[in-house]
Amino acid sequence: MQSLWFNCHAATMAGGRYSIIEDAALVTEGAHIAWIGPRAELPAGDYAERHDLEGAWLTPGLIDCHTHLVFGGDRSGEFEQRLEGVSYAEIAANGGGIASTVRATREASEGELLSGALQRARQLLREGVTTLEVKSGYGLDLASERKMLRVIRLLGDMLPLTVRATCLAAHAVPPEFAGRADAYIERVCREILPELAAEGLVDAVDAFCEHLGFSPAQVERVFVAAQALGLPVKLHAEQLSSLHGSSLAARYQALSADHLEYMTEDDVIAMAAAGSVAVLLPGAFYLLRETRLPPIELLRRHGVAMAVASDLNPGTSPALSLRLMLNMACTSFRLTPEEALAGVTLNAAKALGLAASRGSLEVGKLADFVAWQIRRPAELAYWLGGDLPKRVIRHAREVDHG
Amino acid sequence: MQSLWFNCHAATMAGGRYSIIEDAALVTEGAHIAWIGPRAELPAGDYAERHDLEGAWLTPGLIDCHTHLVFGGDRSGEFEQRLEGVSYAEIAANGGGIASTVRATREASEGELLSGALQRARQLLREGVTTLEVKSGYGLDLASERKMLRVIRLLGDMLPLTVRATCLAAHAVPPEFAGRADAYIERVCREILPELAAEGLVDAVDAFCEHLGFSPAQVERVFVAAQALGLPVKLHAEQLSSLHGSSLAARYQALSADHLEYMTEDDVIAMAAAGSVAVLLPGAFYLLRETRLPPIELLRRHGVAMAVASDLNPGTSPALSLRLMLNMACTSFRLTPEEALAGVTLNAAKALGLAASRGSLEVGKLADFVAWQIRRPAELAYWLGGDLPKRVIRHAREVDHG
Ligand SMILES: [Zn+2]
Ligand SMILES: [Zn+2]
Repeated sequence: MQSLWFNCHAATMAGGRYSIIEDAALVTEGAHIAWIGPRAELPAGDYAERHDLEGAWLTPGLIDCHTHLVFGGDRSGEFEQRLEGVSYAEIAANGGGIASTVRATREASEGELLSGALQRARQLLREGVTTLEVKSGYGLDLASERKMLRVIRLLGDMLPLTVRATCLAAHAVPPEFAGRADAYIERVCREILPELAAEGLVDAVDAFCEHLGFSPAQVERVFVAAQALGLPVKLHAEQLSSLHGSSLAARYQALSADHLEYMTEDDVIAMAAAGSVAVLLPGAFYLLRETRLPPIELLRRHGVAMAVASDLNPGTSPALSLRLMLNMACTSFRLTPEEALAGVTLNAAKALGLAASRGSLEVGKLADFVAWQIRRPAELAYWLGGDLPKRVIRHAREVDHG
Repeated sequence: MQSLWFNCHAATMAGGRYSIIEDAALVTEGAHIAWIGPRAELPAGDYAERHDLEGAWLTPGLIDCHTHLVFGGDRSGEFEQRLEGVSYAEIAANGGGIASTVRATREASEGELLSGALQRARQLLREGVTTLEVKSGYGLDLASERKMLRVIRLLGDMLPLTVRATCLAAHAVPPEFAGRADAYIERVCREILPELAAEGLVDAVDAFCEHLGFSPAQVERVFVAAQALGLPVKLHAEQLSSLHGSSLAARYQALSADHLEYMTEDDVIAMAAAGSVAVLLPGAFYLLRETRLPPIELLRRHGVAMAVASDLNPGTSPALSLRLMLNMACTSFRLTPEEALAGVTLNAAKALGLAASRGSLEVGKLADFVAWQIRRPAELAYWLGGDLPKRVIRHAREVDHG
């Protein structure tokens, strides 16, 4: 049974470019795209449904490939304290920072975590997101990481979204392992990862490689454990300093390395060779008032695919809008609107290992798309905030996002 | 006939501080606030309506005191060209920049201008804005400025918003006066302002004081003309260089001077003495990647009231969200969330000369307020984007913003 979608233009994002089809038509069959092209070339057919898109621009459904949107507690009070002049050290001494999120996440029931996560995921959904990655990493013990990953699976069951779960047990050293990071990494590799993987809760494994987090040697142990479990890896790398985590990630064929402000040309070359995606997170860059830019020109020159994500998290990027990240990627990082849009479609799909089925409007891929009432695709990156009028279609069915 | 609003907390913003009332109640009579205080102290009364606010936080209705949201054309293509490496000079040579907006605004019919402006104003309304200022300034001749100001009046008639119209005929030198700025200022003072004021289309008069715009001497002629017509003045000042426009504005008891990145301490002292409001526009600062901050500490020290606005305009701040400006005021300018909220409530009302009736939740003022489902007022500045759940009440009636 086929459906026809017509009276539209399409930025198909095939090949990571706009790849525009003016006056396009799209045919869906089941959940997939059966045909897309200029309306004038539409083959004759008998369509069960005909959807007039009223001149809209189609893009692939947006993909947010890096979020931490499951968490307990509330850091808005800490945000306010910092602006009132309280130092990071004082906030940390009073149990603030990531420690407060870990404490609140451990204390929260599964239902409480789910309730907050649903609210935040719905904000992204309303903006046209159809595929979402969410990381654990505020539990830092087996039971609490499991609780987070179950909530992540429930999000996918409850919302019209594809949700990928990444285990980030190696996010920080939990308080009960203070000063014993190696022992915690041992726990992650021997117990937490194998258990959670066996329970089917993990699609990928991530870690935080930084002086504040884990050393490259510790990260490598996590990668080895992930590899033994057959799980792909990702890495928070080069955000605040240059530890060459992105080169390490490339050695393990990482799906992506993320942040990357301090990466070197050698890191870029290694990622290019491995086909790893560079995930740029302009929300954290903006909120932390960073000045060191990721090496966009080097990434372009060496052909590393660039994705853009919200990094939605309570401390450094409380970003409820992926579209705002398009503007920030352009304004702060000087991506073109086309590169930014590829960053939340095809390249974001690559960063999740889902490019075979998602990220561009091509025959055989899932019919996940957004019909925007705009005059040109650049508007998606141009407007700051606001709710651009749109219809969201997932698996060939219109999503009611309230 | 009185209505009761209960089961809420209130950040009343009285005195420009949160001035919090926990477990508050609010009584409205007609369009106004008849009583507000702790629910325990609520006087006995017979209320025609009782509204359960389900634990929400009340703030005054938001006020966007500086926008240019009536315009023709579309500058998203130019935004894209710049990021693709086309220079400002090339864009200007091809008729881009503000000249393209002036051309498109002159060519647009009143209905076309209204249609675009309604879409943009509705975005602000949806976020809790109940009072809005809009400037002319893309017409630059009598008929086209009149057309813009009529559209601004129509916005106020059609939407549940109080709309103030500011004549910004002295925004730029129109092409037919190229090289003859003084002659254009003469036209503004002798013809455009008096005509439009006589037609009741003007609530205040603004100008653009900058090397790219008009000199202080030219601005002063506009101020003298406004004063003769009994109209209050405002000024775009000190955005890109220090011409002491804000001191000039203070000499004319301006409601506000706006932008202010390059103002000096003497300018601050002059504004403090005049009671003029400093309107901060972090959207343009962000989009232009400026690094020179307005002198926030000096403004605090000398007691100048600070407002925050979207500056919504197609060139330097295509901002459809006033709440995003709260975050940018905090992140980029280091305002506290409390100062930022005062900047879009009480101080924004002052910047429009409306503080007697708006900007705080106090007896006798209009019952314009927003009921937010948040845990503390700081959340309004904390989240980046997204649509925080809320109910918008204007003149004691709930606004249906679709
Ligand atoms: Zn992250
Ligand atoms: Zn302006």
